[in-house]
Amino acid sequence: MRASQFFIATLKEAPSDAEIVSHQLMLRAGLIRRLAGGIYTWMPMGLRVLRKVETIVREEMNRAGGIELLMPAVQPFELWEESGRGPQYGPELLRFKDRHQRDFVIGPTHEEVITDIVRREVKSYRQLPRNFYQIQTKFRDEIRPRFGVMRGREFLMKDGYSFHTSFADLEREYRSMHDAYTRIFTRLGLKFRAVAADTGSIGGTGSHEFHVLADSGEDAIAFCPTSDYAANVELAEAVTPQKIGAGETAAIEKCEKKATPGKTKCADVADFLNAPLTQTVKAVAVMAGSAREIGQFVLLLLRGDHELNEIKAQKLIGEFRFARDEEIVAALGCKPGYIGPVGFNGRIIADRAVAVMNNFICGANAEGYHLTGANFSRDLPLPAEIADIRNVVAGDPSPDGKGTLELCRGIEVGHIFQLRTKYAEALKCTFLDEQGKEQIMEMGCYGIGVSRIIGAAIEQGHDERGIVFPAGIAPFAVVIVPMAYGKSTMVKTAADALYAELLAAGIDVVLDDRDERPGSMFADWELIGVPHRVVVGERGLKDGKLEYKGRSDVDATLVAADEITGFLQQKLCA
Amino acid sequence: MRASQFFIATLKEAPSDAEIVSHQLMLRAGLIRRLAGGIYTWMPMGLRVLRKVETIVREEMNRAGGIELLMPAVQPFELWEESGRGPQYGPELLRFKDRHQRDFVIGPTHEEVITDIVRREVKSYRQLPRNFYQIQTKFRDEIRPRFGVMRGREFLMKDGYSFHTSFADLEREYRSMHDAYTRIFTRLGLKFRAVAADTGSIGGTGSHEFHVLADSGEDAIAFCPTSDYAANVELAEAVTPQKIGAGETAAIEKCEKKATPGKTKCADVADFLNAPLTQTVKAVAVMAGSAREIGQFVLLLLRGDHELNEIKAQKLIGEFRFARDEEIVAALGCKPGYIGPVGFNGRIIADRAVAVMNNFICGANAEGYHLTGANFSRDLPLPAEIADIRNVVAGDPSPDGKGTLELCRGIEVGHIFQLRTKYAEALKCTFLDEQGKEQIMEMGCYGIGVSRIIGAAIEQGHDERGIVFPAGIAPFAVVIVPMAYGKSTMVKTAADALYAELLAAGIDVVLDDRDERPGSMFADWELIGVPHRVVVGERGLKDGKLEYKGRSDVDATLVAADEITGFLQQKLCA
Repeated sequence: MRASQFFIATLKEAPSDAEIVSHQLMLRAGLIRRLAGGIYTWMPMGLRVLRKVETIVREEMNRAGGIELLMPAVQPFELWEESGRGPQYGPELLRFKDRHQRDFVIGPTHEEVITDIVRREVKSYRQLPRNFYQIQTKFRDEIRPRFGVMRGREFLMKDGYSFHTSFADLEREYRSMHDAYTRIFTRLGLKFRAVAADTGSIGGTGSHEFHVLADSGEDAIAFCPTSDYAANVELAEAVTPQKIGAGETAAIEKCEKKATPGKTKCADVADFLNAPLTQTVKAVAVMAGSAREIGQFVLLLLRGDHELNEIKAQKLIGEFRFARDEEIVAALGCKPGYIGPVGFNGRIIADRAVAVMNNFICGANAEGYHLTGANFSRDLPLPAEIADIRNVVAGDPSPDGKGTLELCRGIEVGHIFQLRTKYAEALKCTFLDEQGKEQIMEMGCYGIGVSRIIGAAIEQGHDERGIVFPAGIAPFAVVIVPMAYGKSTMVKTAADALYAELLAAGIDVVLDDRDERPGSMFADWELIGVPHRVVVGERGLKDGKLEYKGRSDVDATLVAADEITGFLQQKLCA
Repeated sequence: MRASQFFIATLKEAPSDAEIVSHQLMLRAGLIRRLAGGIYTWMPMGLRVLRKVETIVREEMNRAGGIELLMPAVQPFELWEESGRGPQYGPELLRFKDRHQRDFVIGPTHEEVITDIVRREVKSYRQLPRNFYQIQTKFRDEIRPRFGVMRGREFLMKDGYSFHTSFADLEREYRSMHDAYTRIFTRLGLKFRAVAADTGSIGGTGSHEFHVLADSGEDAIAFCPTSDYAANVELAEAVTPQKIGAGETAAIEKCEKKATPGKTKCADVADFLNAPLTQTVKAVAVMAGSAREIGQFVLLLLRGDHELNEIKAQKLIGEFRFARDEEIVAALGCKPGYIGPVGFNGRIIADRAVAVMNNFICGANAEGYHLTGANFSRDLPLPAEIADIRNVVAGDPSPDGKGTLELCRGIEVGHIFQLRTKYAEALKCTFLDEQGKEQIMEMGCYGIGVSRIIGAAIEQGHDERGIVFPAGIAPFAVVIVPMAYGKSTMVKTAADALYAELLAAGIDVVLDDRDERPGSMFADWELIGVPHRVVVGERGLKDGKLEYKGRSDVDATLVAADEITGFLQQKLCA
C-alpha cells in the first residue's frame, strides 16, 4: 500500500471523552471514529487490524473443525420466548416491530437460532458432533457504552456452538476449543490467561474466560507463572501452605494476655507488639441465615494479612451478614476490635492458613487486650471446621502444586461454556441415538470479542508514543519512510525499488510517499504502532545503507540495502 | 474439505413458498435456510459461495483504488434528517429508539454516514479524490420479501462512495468504477450487461445498472450483441431506421378510402387489407396537461407494430392522459378505431419510424373506413414534431450505430451513480481548493448486491439436476466421489491420495467420504453445482484410470490417474 493512496487520519489529541488509553490511541491513530455512543466506524487503518484478528480466529476455528456459517442479525422474538431468555435478558436486548408489527430482536447472541437450525437439520447421532461458528456484527444496547470498542454497542464477535450426543463428547470438544483459543491468542501475540470462571447469564455449567493481561483490566486474576493455572480471584483456591507459618520452628510460647489499648486492627496490634502481621489472627463475626431468619452467630478466623472471600464463606454457611455490635457483645462479652476464638464455644470456621498457625496473636475477648502465644489444642480446640474462606494473595502456593501464585488484572476477550442441555431442552433439539431412541443434545458455546481484542491488545501494548501492536495484527508489518521522496530522485528510486522488493517477498508493507516532514511521518507510524520501520535517506544510500528501527527499539540500526529483505523476514519470523 | 467434516443439507423437495428456481435450488442445495420472511441463514455451503463472491468484489475494488472501511449498521436518525432523506424513505427504513429514547435507523445505505466522516476528516483538495467502500450486512424492511436472497430483508452489500474536487474528476472515477464492475462480473463468470439507467431515489444524475441476464429477470433490456450498448427498454433510443420502410422502392400509390368494417386495430386492418403490419400507422389520442387543467388534444403517430413509450412521450409533452371517446369525437369527428392524421390540423407528433413511411394505411376519421396509400406532403403535411416516442424492438438499429438491438431480461446486481453534490450540499461537506476557497465536493456512489448475485447466478445457470455454478463461485471447484470409500481399501487409499494431491496443488476440492450410495452423492453434488467431478472406483483404478465429468458434460471421460491434476488445472483455467 502507498500511503498517498490510503487514508491516514491521525490526531494530535484524543477527544476528551476517551477515558482509557486504548480508546484514546485508537482515535488518535485513526483506527476508529465515533458515530454515536458506543457505535464506531472502523476506519481503513483500523479495519486492517480487525481483519487480521478475524483471519487468525477463522483459521484456528477451521483447524479445530469448526464449520463457518452466517446467521441473520435480525431474529424473530418468538425464538427468545421459546428459550425463555426473552423476558430475562433486559433492556440491552434491542427489540423492534417490523412493518407488519411482528416482534424481532437484533441478536446479541445466537443460541436460539443455531439450536433452531440444528433441531431442523440434524436428526441422527450419525450427524453429530458438529461445531458451527460465525463471525458477525452484533448489537447490545449497553446502558453506558464506554472505553471505545471495549464496551461498545455494535461490535464484531465470533460465536460458536457445538452439539453432542453425550456430555463426555461435549467435554472432549470443550478441551479442543480451549486448545484452539490458546492457539488463537498465542498467534495474536497477546499475553493472556485462560481463567476458570463462574457461568454468567448464558447458563450451564463449566466455563473458562480468556483474559488479556493488562493493568487496566476490569477483572482480578490469580495465576501461576510456572504452570497453566489461572482463576478469577473470587474463585481461586487458597490451599494450605506447605510450610507452616511464622511459628513453625519456634518453641511453643506461653499464652499471655497483653494490654493493647486502642489497637483494634491486626496491623496496629502487630506493630504495637512488634510482631509480624502474619502471626495475628483476625476473627470476623457473622450471622448465618437469610435476612428474615434469626441467624446463627459464627466466628470466621483469618490470618491477619488475609481477606475474607465472601463467595467462599457463603458456599459453606449459606447466606450471611456481618454481626452487629450488640450481637458480638452478646456472644463474646466484648465489643469488636478485641474479639477472638479463645473461650468461645460456638461455631468457629478457621481458614486453612489459620489452622496451621501456632504462637499466634488474637483478641482476648476483653476490651483493650489481646492474647499472644496462643496455640490450638492447648489454649483452644482446633476448630471442627477448617476451610478455604479467604482470597488468595501473591505468593500463595498454586492449587495445582506447580509454583506460587501471582495476581494480575485482565480484560475478558473470550469465553467458553458447557451449556449442557439448557437450550436443547427448551427448544426440543433432539436426535435419535444408536438404539433409535430420542435424546436431548448436549451443547457447548464459545465466544470471542473480535473487536474488543484490539482494545485489549492496545491496553497491553502501548508507550508514550502510541500503540505497540504485536506484529501479527499491526495494520502493516513494515513501513518505509523515505526522506524527501518528492525531491530526491535517488531516494524515490530506492524507496520504490524497496517497496516492490518487499511486496514481492510477501511482506505487508506501506510506503509513506506522502512527502510529509520526517518527524511527522515518524510520529504517525509510531502512533499507529507499525512494528518495523525502514528509513530511506540520501546519506545512508551513499554508503548503500538503510536505517532500521523496531517500534520498541531505543536506537536505529544501519542495514546494508541489499540485505534488508532478509533482515526484515528474520524480524517478522522472530 | 472432507464432506464428513462439513455440513451438507440437501433436500429432495423445495418448500412450497419458494417461487423461483434460484430460491428453490438454494434451499434444496442447502445454501440457505429461512429464519423469517426475507431473512436467511447462510449455511456452510452457501457461505462458501458468498465469500467467494465477496472476495472477487473486494479484490477488484482494491485494484481500482477503493479503500475499504466498515461503517456501523446502526446510524443516528439525525443524519437522515440532515440529508432530508429520513421522511422521504418510507417504511422500509427500519427505525428504532434505543434505551435512552434516541432515534436510530438500521442503515439500508450509508451516504449520510460516509459524508459525515468525510466532512470531518477531509479539509483540503490535497486529500481528494478518495473512494471508500465497505462490504456489510444491510437491512431493508421490504413490504413483500420474496425470491429468497433476491429480494430479502437482510442482505450483504458492497457500497462505495467517492469524493471529488470537480465533476470532471467524478466522471473519471465513474468510468473507472464502470470498468471495475465490468471486471468483477466478468471474473464472477456471469453473462451481464451494463445498462444506462434512470436514477432512482438515491438522486443525482448519470447512472448505470449492471444486470445479470436471465429470462426470469424483472427488467427488460435492449442491447447490441456486437457492441457495448445496453439500456432499459424504457430508456433505449429508437433511432430512425437507415433503410426507409416497406414502401421505399414502391411507386407512390393513390390514396384511397377503403371500407374496413369492424376493424379497429392495426393488425386486423393489415390482415383485412392483406398488407404488412409495418405499413400501418396507429394514431394514439392523448390530452396533454396535468389532470386538473383543461388539456391540449395531441395525436401521437406510431407504426402499427410499435408501442408507445410513455416516458419518452412525457418528456416531450409533459404530463398527459389518454383522450376519452367524447374528446376524440370532438377533435376528429370520429370515434376511436378509425382515426388518423389526415385532415387534422391540431398538434401531431410522429414517431421517427412513421416519418420515413410512404403509401401507409391509417384511419380515415370516418367510422368503418381506413385510408391506404397515404403519403406525407401530398395527403397531409409532414408533422412539425418528429421524435422518438416508441419502445425499441428487436432488430432496431443500435443507437451507437454498431449493430442491431436484441431484447432480453436482466436482474440488477450493481448500480453506479453520479450523485453530484446532493448529499455534500445537505451535509455541508466541503473542501478548500488550491486558492483556499471553500467548495462543495462532488460525489459518486457504487453499489453491488453481493448476496443477490448468487440468486442471479443461479437464475442464469441451472438445469433440471440443479445449480450450474460458474467455476469461480462454486462452493467447491472439484468434488472427489469415491465408490465404496468405507469398504474398499484400494478406493480409500486412492481417493485420499488424490485429495491430498489436489489440495497440494491449491485446488479447492471436497472429498465425499460420507459413504452414501453413489447415486445419492452424484445427485447432491449436481444439485449443489460443483463444476468438476472425479469418480474413484475399483474398476477404473485397475486400469489406472479415474472418471471425470464436468457439471454440464453429457458423458464422463476416463483420465489416467497420474494425469488428473494437470487435467483439472487445465479445466479450471479454461
